[in-house]
Amino acid sequence: MRIENIVPPSDLRAPPADSKSPFGTEGLRGFSPYLINRVIRRYNSSVEAALRDTPVNVARLRVIAALVANGPQGITELSIFSVSEQSTTSRLVDQMEVEGLVTRRIDRHDQRARIVALTDAGRRAFDKGFPIMQAEEARMLDGFTSAEQALLRELLGRMLDNVRNTSI
Amino acid sequence: MRIENIVPPSDLRAPPADSKSPFGTEGLRGFSPYLINRVIRRYNSSVEAALRDTPVNVARLRVIAALVANGPQGITELSIFSVSEQSTTSRLVDQMEVEGLVTRRIDRHDQRARIVALTDAGRRAFDKGFPIMQAEEARMLDGFTSAEQALLRELLGRMLDNVRNTSI
Repeated sequence: MRIENIVPPSDLRAPPADSKSPFGTEGLRGFSPYLINRVIRRYNSSVEAALRDTPVNVARLRVIAALVANGPQGITELSIFSVSEQSTTSRLVDQMEVEGLVTRRIDRHDQRARIVALTDAGRRAFDKGFPIMQAEEARMLDGFTSAEQALLRELLGRMLDNVRNTSI
Repeated sequence: MRIENIVPPSDLRAPPADSKSPFGTEGLRGFSPYLINRVIRRYNSSVEAALRDTPVNVARLRVIAALVANGPQGITELSIFSVSEQSTTSRLVDQMEVEGLVTRRIDRHDQRARIVALTDAGRRAFDKGFPIMQAEEARMLDGFTSAEQALLRELLGRMLDNVRNTSI
């Protein structure tokens, strides 16, 4: 059943009659975390769907993208850059090593630590998968000028600097 | 172990030496979905932590906020506005009804459908919990002028219009 068959959009979009609404005249759209959650949920599920016919999923592609962008790195950095729990990243990297997408080597600065690096197969998976992420980003930013896209990244970068709890 | 003890931030922030990087000179920060995922993950986990000593969690508070913003509504709309799977929303509303936060009544337009409405206890939970979400939003937007905040919401609203697959 499509939403528009249930409630007229005008009813759904209209702010509540109560002028003392905590969300102001914009309704939920006046609360930026609501907008961000909705946008990124749709983006992520669209990427997941578009990757269905490829050998990698979103979680793997994020790890691979972090390695392409920042080079070989430890699990802690990798979990931050791939936006995933450290334990989840660790298990995923185990699987990706078996699949031949990454390798692990001893950190030359710390014998107990392991550094994760991309293999040629991992790089090929990136070359196949990343354009799919870029296409979804392009769809999300349809109608945005280059200046608006740069501005968006600048605002998001400042937000990240405000909320992050690590130096990266 | 803190990140800054592992790798100097300068190394982590620096774009890869390879000028042909698919992420350009900004590294991962040049890819807006990366920034959005990182920002909202931190925001959501900060809210979850801040709500720990209250009777509601993030999932409940989102359902409650959607009801405050848009009034009584069906599960389909509620799952969209609370940014949650429909089956998850349905189970959550069952629990919230037992907890006395919401009630369900028959839809006067469709005898088979149920409309979810907030109770007085639900509204009190909102009055306690929503300021916590607002405080985390304020932290995320620290240093933003009112004009920048409005611009951010405008850009996010356009992104949502680009990616959403319903009329709401």
